[in-house]
Amino acid sequence: MKISHRVTNINGGGSDGWDVFLKARGMIAEGVAVTELTIGEHDIRTAAPILQEMHRSAMGGHTGYAMVPGINTLRDTVAARVQARTGVPTTRDNVIITPGGQAALFAAHSVACDPGDTALYIDPYYATYPGTIRAVSAVPQSVPAHADNAFQPRAADIAQAAEQGAKSLLVNSPNNPTGVVYSRETLDGIAQVCKAHDLWLISDEVYDTQVWTGDHLSPRALPGMADRTLVVGSMSKSHAMTGSRCGWIVGPQDVIANLVNLATNTTYGVPGYIQDAANFALNQGPQVEAEVSEPFRRRREKAMAVLAKQNTISLVPAQGAMYLMLDIRATGLSGDDFANDLLDTHHIAVMPGESFGQAAAGHIRVAMTIDDDRFIAALETLCDFAAGLARK
Amino acid sequence: MKISHRVTNINGGGSDGWDVFLKARGMIAEGVAVTELTIGEHDIRTAAPILQEMHRSAMGGHTGYAMVPGINTLRDTVAARVQARTGVPTTRDNVIITPGGQAALFAAHSVACDPGDTALYIDPYYATYPGTIRAVSAVPQSVPAHADNAFQPRAADIAQAAEQGAKSLLVNSPNNPTGVVYSRETLDGIAQVCKAHDLWLISDEVYDTQVWTGDHLSPRALPGMADRTLVVGSMSKSHAMTGSRCGWIVGPQDVIANLVNLATNTTYGVPGYIQDAANFALNQGPQVEAEVSEPFRRRREKAMAVLAKQNTISLVPAQGAMYLMLDIRATGLSGDDFANDLLDTHHIAVMPGESFGQAAAGHIRVAMTIDDDRFIAALETLCDFAAGLARK
Repeated sequence: MKISHRVTNINGGGSDGWDVFLKARGMIAEGVAVTELTIGEHDIRTAAPILQEMHRSAMGGHTGYAMVPGINTLRDTVAARVQARTGVPTTRDNVIITPGGQAALFAAHSVACDPGDTALYIDPYYATYPGTIRAVSAVPQSVPAHADNAFQPRAADIAQAAEQGAKSLLVNSPNNPTGVVYSRETLDGIAQVCKAHDLWLISDEVYDTQVWTGDHLSPRALPGMADRTLVVGSMSKSHAMTGSRCGWIVGPQDVIANLVNLATNTTYGVPGYIQDAANFALNQGPQVEAEVSEPFRRRREKAMAVLAKQNTISLVPAQGAMYLMLDIRATGLSGDDFANDLLDTHHIAVMPGESFGQAAAGHIRVAMTIDDDRFIAALETLCDFAAGLARK
Repeated sequence: MKISHRVTNINGGGSDGWDVFLKARGMIAEGVAVTELTIGEHDIRTAAPILQEMHRSAMGGHTGYAMVPGINTLRDTVAARVQARTGVPTTRDNVIITPGGQAALFAAHSVACDPGDTALYIDPYYATYPGTIRAVSAVPQSVPAHADNAFQPRAADIAQAAEQGAKSLLVNSPNNPTGVVYSRETLDGIAQVCKAHDLWLISDEVYDTQVWTGDHLSPRALPGMADRTLVVGSMSKSHAMTGSRCGWIVGPQDVIANLVNLATNTTYGVPGYIQDAANFALNQGPQVEAEVSEPFRRRREKAMAVLAKQNTISLVPAQGAMYLMLDIRATGLSGDDFANDLLDTHHIAVMPGESFGQAAAGHIRVAMTIDDDRFIAALETLCDFAAGLARK
């Protein structure tokens, strides 16, 4: 039986870049003590008060079908949050709740692109981006953000790609995997290109509570951009609710109305008790979010102290998110080889930059998602390993 | 900004058939006491022990990303359940857990059809079927199941549609909206057509615990069909867990592997604590499921007693599911007009048959989803109303 090209083609015929991760998991399964610095998931669990609110809601009877666009309280809370951050008038009619940020990325591309349309995304990229575009039968085209520009994408590069015809551009700031926060200049350039080439801008802002230097700016706030920007948000990173699969899209009202029709036929909404829990969590105020992000802020500072003591590895400015992108080109190895050798010799698993596209070749991504002492010890070992390679 | 044809076309340019439902909701909002017999949702909530298990799981830390295919315990339970019912060897590798039955219908069509492919479905149909097909940029084509054949689809009609080229056929037994359970003869005919025309069979079996007469037979059990059948199941109807959005697809291993790739890019899994709760619920045994379905069985029997006292309305054999399909053609009205007049004059809301396709014209669907006394009183009023029309 023939399976659709849409789905058999999702990985683009190549590796999905998770070989080192899978190798590490295989070693762990065999009893090897591997230090995993691979996955973007907190080392804490969802806070008990949020789960207790969820249980209260469920036991109170909120177990039937929830409204497909999302419950009004949560839509209102998300709208108020986005309006406060952008200054753009935003109501519940600008918001649809989705079963997680990934579902939001998929829905946003569904509404922006028809089959065969080209969808742009920035390389380095989060692992699912090209597959998400292929899942809507669109054609992914990457635009490099170069290491020599601190992984800030250049407007001219995006414009060049857009000139060949494209319907959308997907950006992500604070960025996974690079840890870069897009500058005002970068975002102004992106906005200009989107307007000049009539592109939808899909702005993945799920790390917006993890900013260590500078400020996160949503492109929805830029002049003339609210009508063409679809902001993707999520409870996953801000409130350590990765498993609860609760996210949203904020965009123009007519897009949201169309997304509701799409959701009726793709997901039929999000559990009401999870939405109640999310609404409760978002109303706990910024202190709760600061507490969730604090371990990454702290580990980043400790890591910078470690990296300051050596000169083989250089750190891409770690401005946000829960990762460090390290330039290991001075070792003479590719990111792939470095990561594989590090795993084999020191049982430390990191992600090769090549897992996230060609622009991050010669780099590795280190997730700051284990306790401080083990994290710093692993980073010190990693630095010594790199220094040894550079001396060869 | 241009929104994709894929999404703007989801409702096919026509009404979605929910006008009476929305009118009733509008009357309720204005304070009118409307008896709603429209929606396929239990009048009970999810049982407390299931919700307590969910809370135990969440508080125990099952709040991080769950494996995208689903947790192994739940996949094993679903596999064992399907194997017990079909006799077909089934393992966890034949199962993917989805965020609800609707997401399963969408994923099944994604893997069966590429853009532009034709996907068949039976009319009368559940409201989302054509929209689900359009959401994957495929072309829906209906095959009528005629009232004069008790809404059992005929193999010759399916074959005729398939001859024009089609990739898949979507069936639903026990059936919403007709309440019909497909006979062995019907299913054998469907299987023959699928094999002759190389069709994927997408079998929506979410009402499989609500069978009042005869037996539910899954086409996965038929000779040569396991390799081309994608069974859609869900916790919604069997365990009154509609809002929890937990369903699955059971199919060939290579299809499941491809569906996992799709899910990575569309939903990224289902909350682990919901899967734990579902696994707990499925392991409570058939008595719990019988208790959930019992009100519909009981109301159906009471309804048949009411209908036996009159001869204007005839009941389509109500073999399963939580609905009665009533033939009101003797009143001289269309289903639409009957439903509208009944709502206006008696404040009773039912769904016109026309909401579910042309094959159900001149019928109405009555959901048995309110308490027995109010249900029977409303049905008596409805019968009197019909008799009055017939006398005119």
